[in-house]
Amino acid sequence: MAEYSMPELIARKRDGGTLDADELRWVIDGYTKGTIPDYQMSAFLMAVVCRGLSSDELAAWTEAMLHSGDVLDLSSIAAPKVDKHSTGGVGDKVSIPLAPLVAACGVAVPMMSGRGLGHTGGTLDKLESIPGFSTSFTADEFVAQLADIGIVLAGQSESLVPADRKIYALRDATATVPSIPLIASSIMSKKLAEDLDALVLDVKVGSGAFMKDLGDAETLARTMVDIGAAHGTKVVAHLTAMDQPLGYEVGNANEIRESIQVLRGGGPPDLVSVTMLLAEEMLLLGGVAPDRSAARDRLEVALSSGAAVDRFRQVVAAQGGNPDVVDDPALLPAPDHLHEVVASRSGYVTRCDALTVGWAAVRLGAGRSRKEDRIDPAVGITLHAKVGDRVEAGSSLATVGWNDRERLDGCLELLETAWEFADEAPPAARLVLGEVR
Amino acid sequence: MAEYSMPELIARKRDGGTLDADELRWVIDGYTKGTIPDYQMSAFLMAVVCRGLSSDELAAWTEAMLHSGDVLDLSSIAAPKVDKHSTGGVGDKVSIPLAPLVAACGVAVPMMSGRGLGHTGGTLDKLESIPGFSTSFTADEFVAQLADIGIVLAGQSESLVPADRKIYALRDATATVPSIPLIASSIMSKKLAEDLDALVLDVKVGSGAFMKDLGDAETLARTMVDIGAAHGTKVVAHLTAMDQPLGYEVGNANEIRESIQVLRGGGPPDLVSVTMLLAEEMLLLGGVAPDRSAARDRLEVALSSGAAVDRFRQVVAAQGGNPDVVDDPALLPAPDHLHEVVASRSGYVTRCDALTVGWAAVRLGAGRSRKEDRIDPAVGITLHAKVGDRVEAGSSLATVGWNDRERLDGCLELLETAWEFADEAPPAARLVLGEVR
Repeated sequence: MAEYSMPELIARKRDGGTLDADELRWVIDGYTKGTIPDYQMSAFLMAVVCRGLSSDELAAWTEAMLHSGDVLDLSSIAAPKVDKHSTGGVGDKVSIPLAPLVAACGVAVPMMSGRGLGHTGGTLDKLESIPGFSTSFTADEFVAQLADIGIVLAGQSESLVPADRKIYALRDATATVPSIPLIASSIMSKKLAEDLDALVLDVKVGSGAFMKDLGDAETLARTMVDIGAAHGTKVVAHLTAMDQPLGYEVGNANEIRESIQVLRGGGPPDLVSVTMLLAEEMLLLGGVAPDRSAARDRLEVALSSGAAVDRFRQVVAAQGGNPDVVDDPALLPAPDHLHEVVASRSGYVTRCDALTVGWAAVRLGAGRSRKEDRIDPAVGITLHAKVGDRVEAGSSLATVGWNDRERLDGCLELLETAWEFADEAPPAARLVLGEVR
Repeated sequence: MAEYSMPELIARKRDGGTLDADELRWVIDGYTKGTIPDYQMSAFLMAVVCRGLSSDELAAWTEAMLHSGDVLDLSSIAAPKVDKHSTGGVGDKVSIPLAPLVAACGVAVPMMSGRGLGHTGGTLDKLESIPGFSTSFTADEFVAQLADIGIVLAGQSESLVPADRKIYALRDATATVPSIPLIASSIMSKKLAEDLDALVLDVKVGSGAFMKDLGDAETLARTMVDIGAAHGTKVVAHLTAMDQPLGYEVGNANEIRESIQVLRGGGPPDLVSVTMLLAEEMLLLGGVAPDRSAARDRLEVALSSGAAVDRFRQVVAAQGGNPDVVDDPALLPAPDHLHEVVASRSGYVTRCDALTVGWAAVRLGAGRSRKEDRIDPAVGITLHAKVGDRVEAGSSLATVGWNDRERLDGCLELLETAWEFADEAPPAARLVLGEVR
């Protein structure tokens, strides 16, 4: 590979110029190998935050990240391979019912998920609340399970996209996280390394999402769809609301319980709506249904026949977890104590703030303030009143399952500020805000 | 001191916000002490390059740099203390005749200079071509010599403004050099640490200067004058042309020889003009002359009486150099060989490019391509034809004094491209382009 001067490449980006694919590959490779030091990479990343990347640059940058380590080879799998990725929210457990439901309809789901950070939960942490459940795989084990039961619920492999892990840690320490091209390339390099036929994105918008603004969320969605197109992978993004938590449960075992309800054909309407919207899209992209109505029918059958919940039982067993939790959620970790948060007045709920509930759950021990923190799988928040609901003074707004008094106090201090009320019912809030394809 | 979060401060600057004085001091102190790592500082510096610093921020940033180490205390010196700083050019040896000339008129000159880097020469390197000359001082020695003979020609002390040394090295490696606030604070923190009553700046503009454009140079000058005002130090900036070298000599011993000519009342007209302009300003700011015409008269007397050259002889002796060089410049290092660059055609010189001549001198060994390079004090270029001069085909454009054949070849390859010619005489070029006070 040609040799370049890093200060010269930083200077070009600083002045709003563009780098070609060879130059961008040299930057990613050099940083991954350690020949480019952190202090040059952080200056380059800040120049990207300030000046952006062109769509050609972004495609080349993502491709270089994607090839910084191993990539999966799923060519031996005959079924269409489709994954879903959410940009993260509070109570967003959609992946857990979605993956077995879609797998039960003939789409292979090679899902690699992350851990919670900040105010949002992580699919891996939730799955690990199932006793014995493991998310570690070798490449061979991954392919074998996908061939066998059409679904893998894995953690990010250490050998996949090492550039992203290193760049992400640096971005976190240097205030270079909020950049649409850097966010988009981080997500897409990991997803494209999964060797997918297609990808569905759930871009969350609102107080509890990383994108607070619909315009920014649309730009991020468009950017990711374009990266997919440049790579030759079909990508569709749906934009969904994250002003209040999705469903009623926030916490790890809590969210597994609610996911099982969905797989049994029940569950809260907002969670079911988003799950079905994304599942339909995955069936369409996987080519196993001719249109949205046929996809819907097929999904309904998978739920009502028990095929979806059966598939979840299979994946839990295959990954070392106790499959009995699916039929007896009381086997999941449970908190020692419960506390009720009660309404101070009567009225209609006009706000149940996702960001506040998310941070309250972190304080309770359901999430991490720092990467090295341990989570308590048993604690969580069960909401009883969401936007539009009528409450009476003294009735319960939420039940908090807790294990540590100090953590409970910290949680309640925040949680009690999450709700707002009015005498009149608020207008119905939109859940689905748009799509980009 | 309060503790801040560096990612939070970087984020604020990234988003175009401002930091207060305590926050900026915390950044400078933490970086100087090593508690803030290079990779965070380089991201912060790139955010400053992209977003700038407000004038309040810049004053606080410069003040924090200034106090990152020792500062001089010249309160025991009764005479007015005035220094001059040039932003750097080719053949710019003005400091060398200027300092003794002004000192001979009753202004104390506590001058700390730098080494050459890039295509420009450095005052320290030129002075060290005088056999025995030393530019290292303790603080006590500095004050004692200033009290005794009114002039010190020193290198930058290690203990003065350590933040600047560390930040400059990082900027060089991370493409964060070209930022007017960062350039201005680097210069002004070092000059204000000299405990001056006033400062005269020579901001060079043109091909051989770091500022190619008059507008940028004016902005830099205004920025530095404002930093001085915020600190309570009078600063006046003159903008002078650097499209061709100043004077005829480029090189280390070469420039000492030409400086001595000026101190004896001779020397090339452009070099004399700039020296006198800046010297007059220093006398006015020092309050030793009531107006420009009186200052001029006093300077002419110092030159014609021999007082200026005497003062130079004194400072050379005080700093361990051989004072006989002043009367016998043949005692300075001389090259083993001479080479003539001849005109390929007859005509008027329309260009004698400073940047080209500067890099040619570096190739010859008179400057450094990298910090660790050693310079050869004996080699240099003596120009015979500058803009507006009439030359005949075959006549000498320059004499190159050289010691190494390979270096000569590299030098000539560039040097021969420095001149352009036309049949008509070009319009007279302006030397003095403006002032900011």
